[in-house]
Amino acid sequence: MLTERLSTDMSQSVKKITGLVAATFTPLSEDGEINLSVIAPYIDYLVDKQGVKCVFVNGTTGEGCSLTVDERKQLAAAWCHHGKGKLEQVIVHVGCLSLKDSQELAHHAASIGANGISVISPSYFKPMNADALRLFIKEVSASAPGLPMYYYHLPGLTGVTLEAADVLDGIEKVIPSFQGVKYSGMDLRDLGQCVSYSQPRNWSVLYGVDEQLLAALVLGVDGAVGSTYNYLGRMVKQIISAFDNGNHSQARTLQFKFMEIITFARSLGFDVSVNKQVMSEVSGLPLGPPRLPLLPCLVSKAQAIAQKIRDFSQGH
Amino acid sequence: MLTERLSTDMSQSVKKITGLVAATFTPLSEDGEINLSVIAPYIDYLVDKQGVKCVFVNGTTGEGCSLTVDERKQLAAAWCHHGKGKLEQVIVHVGCLSLKDSQELAHHAASIGANGISVISPSYFKPMNADALRLFIKEVSASAPGLPMYYYHLPGLTGVTLEAADVLDGIEKVIPSFQGVKYSGMDLRDLGQCVSYSQPRNWSVLYGVDEQLLAALVLGVDGAVGSTYNYLGRMVKQIISAFDNGNHSQARTLQFKFMEIITFARSLGFDVSVNKQVMSEVSGLPLGPPRLPLLPCLVSKAQAIAQKIRDFSQGH
Amino acid sequence: MLTERLSTDMSQSVKKITGLVAATFTPLSEDGEINLSVIAPYIDYLVDKQGVKCVFVNGTTGEGCSLTVDERKQLAAAWCHHGKGKLEQVIVHVGCLSLKDSQELAHHAASIGANGISVISPSYFKPMNADALRLFIKEVSASAPGLPMYYYHLPGLTGVTLEAADVLDGIEKVIPSFQGVKYSGMDLRDLGQCVSYSQPRNWSVLYGVDEQLLAALVLGVDGAVGSTYNYLGRMVKQIISAFDNGNHSQARTLQFKFMEIITFARSLGFDVSVNKQVMSEVSGLPLGPPRLPLLPCLVSKAQAIAQKIRDFSQGH
Amino acid sequence: MLTERLSTDMSQSVKKITGLVAATFTPLSEDGEINLSVIAPYIDYLVDKQGVKCVFVNGTTGEGCSLTVDERKQLAAAWCHHGKGKLEQVIVHVGCLSLKDSQELAHHAASIGANGISVISPSYFKPMNADALRLFIKEVSASAPGLPMYYYHLPGLTGVTLEAADVLDGIEKVIPSFQGVKYSGMDLRDLGQCVSYSQPRNWSVLYGVDEQLLAALVLGVDGAVGSTYNYLGRMVKQIISAFDNGNHSQARTLQFKFMEIITFARSLGFDVSVNKQVMSEVSGLPLGPPRLPLLPCLVSKAQAIAQKIRDFSQGH
Repeated sequence: MLTERLSTDMSQSVKKITGLVAATFTPLSEDGEINLSVIAPYIDYLVDKQGVKCVFVNGTTGEGCSLTVDERKQLAAAWCHHGKGKLEQVIVHVGCLSLKDSQELAHHAASIGANGISVISPSYFKPMNADALRLFIKEVSASAPGLPMYYYHLPGLTGVTLEAADVLDGIEKVIPSFQGVKYSGMDLRDLGQCVSYSQPRNWSVLYGVDEQLLAALVLGVDGAVGSTYNYLGRMVKQIISAFDNGNHSQARTLQFKFMEIITFARSLGFDVSVNKQVMSEVSGLPLGPPRLPLLPCLVSKAQAIAQKIRDFSQGH
Repeated sequence: MLTERLSTDMSQSVKKITGLVAATFTPLSEDGEINLSVIAPYIDYLVDKQGVKCVFVNGTTGEGCSLTVDERKQLAAAWCHHGKGKLEQVIVHVGCLSLKDSQELAHHAASIGANGISVISPSYFKPMNADALRLFIKEVSASAPGLPMYYYHLPGLTGVTLEAADVLDGIEKVIPSFQGVKYSGMDLRDLGQCVSYSQPRNWSVLYGVDEQLLAALVLGVDGAVGSTYNYLGRMVKQIISAFDNGNHSQARTLQFKFMEIITFARSLGFDVSVNKQVMSEVSGLPLGPPRLPLLPCLVSKAQAIAQKIRDFSQGH
Repeated sequence: MLTERLSTDMSQSVKKITGLVAATFTPLSEDGEINLSVIAPYIDYLVDKQGVKCVFVNGTTGEGCSLTVDERKQLAAAWCHHGKGKLEQVIVHVGCLSLKDSQELAHHAASIGANGISVISPSYFKPMNADALRLFIKEVSASAPGLPMYYYHLPGLTGVTLEAADVLDGIEKVIPSFQGVKYSGMDLRDLGQCVSYSQPRNWSVLYGVDEQLLAALVLGVDGAVGSTYNYLGRMVKQIISAFDNGNHSQARTLQFKFMEIITFARSLGFDVSVNKQVMSEVSGLPLGPPRLPLLPCLVSKAQAIAQKIRDFSQGH
Repeated sequence: MLTERLSTDMSQSVKKITGLVAATFTPLSEDGEINLSVIAPYIDYLVDKQGVKCVFVNGTTGEGCSLTVDERKQLAAAWCHHGKGKLEQVIVHVGCLSLKDSQELAHHAASIGANGISVISPSYFKPMNADALRLFIKEVSASAPGLPMYYYHLPGLTGVTLEAADVLDGIEKVIPSFQGVKYSGMDLRDLGQCVSYSQPRNWSVLYGVDEQLLAALVLGVDGAVGSTYNYLGRMVKQIISAFDNGNHSQARTLQFKFMEIITFARSLGFDVSVNKQVMSEVSGLPLGPPRLPLLPCLVSKAQAIAQKIRDFSQGH
């Protein structure tokens, strides 16, 4: 069938995402407006200092839901424009509570040369079953049929309890451009079944709970999307290398160190606001405050976490 | 102080909301576009058949979060326009995940002559404390300083566990136009403390869990906002009258009957989609399907519920 | 049928529980053993100072689950023995995770002249549907077929989400001695349907969320079981009287004051341990510490709450 | 210090648990009494057919909480008695809601020659912090100071949200006999930190979510405790071997197959009751029904799952 063929065609032509993807923060000026001037140096920092060449724009870390549709377009365009020749993949998150908004963003992403789009489940009205969610993603995808589509699974924040493996089951039949999943959940049985289903289809399964990436690696994920790869990308690459070389002990030691940093950060209240300030501290980029309802974080908090990160990075 | 005086002034000049407020459904055409032609007959139905003269537009029942900013403006304008001379209060819900979107809607509501605006807590990023939520509401209110502002408390859907009484505490100092709360939660201690705080300030406390309204009445609420008042307004007015007349037994009997209808509806899966179809069945208004991620409901389901409603309404 | 007749017979002969029931604390000595010597003065305090003549023994407040089967027997026997001629009803809670333990306690309750028994749902393994829970209660009841059985509904602690109205539905057919429910939940639709079902059967519906009792009164409950009636019984009787006299305003004012006390207590961390110490402070009875896993509370905390209670009680 | 030395001494003398531990089912007769005659053949089945030589008795799988203290003693004694010379480790779970019951069971376990004891957190009253839980475990341990103590972490069932790593932190100072944790949670950061803390202390970290064991292996756990090792022990040993040999691909393939079985079982409602019947089907041992509040499962359900298991086992 045509659908089948299209699907196959895209799978063969699309460059599969592997390795680390930074879920980018959104730079704001002190008066709360988006600050596009930071994007170019941000890209240089990721590529040069962290060795990270793929980005996930306007997701949770990027406060996508707190931005207007127009702001999201400007940001996506800036990442695509400045990333040309430097970044390998710019994935634009286009998920919104409103299907129409998501469709507009998907259409826009195609027009600016994004490498792919991603959709999180609506979280106010929750899809009553996997069919409802697949339909929602399909309708978004229809506005950018030529762009690879990745499902963004984050049950902890959306409260949507559908298993990702159920969402993936047969989705290629309704969404020919489907290409994988950003899995940010704790249920590794579900993750494993996503990997098992995705491998023969050449889709990417990218893990999103940074502090337990090693566990996902052994289950066969292709890579990872996360906020900490903005400032700990280089270090996490060592975890991946150690694992790939069969050096479990070293991979584990590094991952445990990483866990310690996160545990420390969480003890101080580690939300997107704190995380953003940590990135400003570590990278020197002026990312600015978060937007309400997030409150700006105490600089001292972020500095304490940043110090842990530097201590660690220098140790390795 | 000026702020204090303004607050007092508004409280004295604003018509306090009492009685029943219908949380309106949003009419869509079969192809999924908003259908403004239904608003005028919808208003006539509410006023003539249900005796309901206040509406809460673009809230949960109205699928507000599934609409674009532009669609929400068009709907709000239509309700204000056609409601002139017929409706007593048009409250426009302007809550969004994005503060900027909410501000734009608030500004627009003021320009079309709405009687008030309301804001639900952002639910993707959850305010970390009452201060954060008050700040968010304040910033929205600043875009329509002349319009009464009502906080919309719906913890079951937002997942925000802040107590409404904590949000209200001192809010008049930061939001002079604050006028009350639509309380759609189950915690009646919190509700009681909202009533206790609101009474001396002449604010409205409107209850939002229709099936247990009687319990809120005895705690002193001023009225109620709910979806069932679209089609059961006349009947619920009898509950209120019986209660006001000290006839607890009659009020209770009616409320129990109401509970039975809701229990029956819930056994069939009573979401906004089913609810909307029930309204179409009972009222004859062509409200159309819901928007994704809600799925259209089986007509037979809605008909079964509508029959229960008619049986009951005719009995009284 | 015989079963039907027995059921009717019991309903007619059993004295229906109305008014306030104190959920009693369990006195422990400083070394953590049960201290039976406090029971007699405890009863005098309840009857003389609070006007409360019904007790619910070995429930949540009484740390029933932290006691051994033998300790629970000793306590139940002491309450029955010392309560003779003073208390109107001694209801013994016999719910355990183990059906066999519950059966043994039920059998024992019958042998010591208790007026009734009550069972909470097992909470480790949760009944998968209402049938499973009814069967469990039935098997307990079979060990004391002559004693009125009350279902103890406390979803917030058990995590069992079954609706009480579903548990009650048809239960008289399997448990002839069934006589009512202690409803300690927030869902007043479910509560209302329990009242509606219980009234024609002459069962008692007793509400268990003390701080919102007024809301339950208007829905027709027969009385209330709670821990605060140990020290605020006299005051809550005024709420009930005001309500019975149609004086909603007074009832509400008192209930709001009561809510304030609870809100204050909760801001300090109001668990059974603190509650027990509050009772010691207010009553002067030496109730002793709680048992692990509850930790003893700071005396200053309990004193601050006790002071609020005394301020209030003296004001009325 | 003495405490420190004792701790070290025990760690050196205690045989560390590694590999697979079967969480045993409790055989009941058709009339619901414990059926000790099945224990001896049960042990032979585990050792001979599954190659499993360690057992965890009276835990969740064994319906420990549904048994009386006396029944738990009889079962523990039977496992120790018949296991002599056949089993390597008999760990007796002694956790109860009542500290006193747990102490009695701990004392008894020591008297019958158990190799260790384990305690789950009380779940009705939840420990308010890690200190409270450590104190509880300490008091139990004090009744069997010579027996290795393992903390049983199962947040999904207890609802206790304390992190296990917080419970372990410094626990050797208050419980010299502490020897490890059965970690049955999904939070692998927490698990990782338990491993990191336990390794230098020579404690065992045993994972308890069978369907994602591979993820725990890469994080360095010493072994696993689970119900499925009763009938899938031999197969899971292949997963462990493949992993140990650095053959991730084979380990993953087997783990995915295992996940499929569990996903299938869960689609049919996979609780302890179904699980027990599956074990009866696969092993041929007459384990009997579960005890209320668990309901007996349809035999056809268990047979369908058992068939999947046999299909798989024969394939490997």
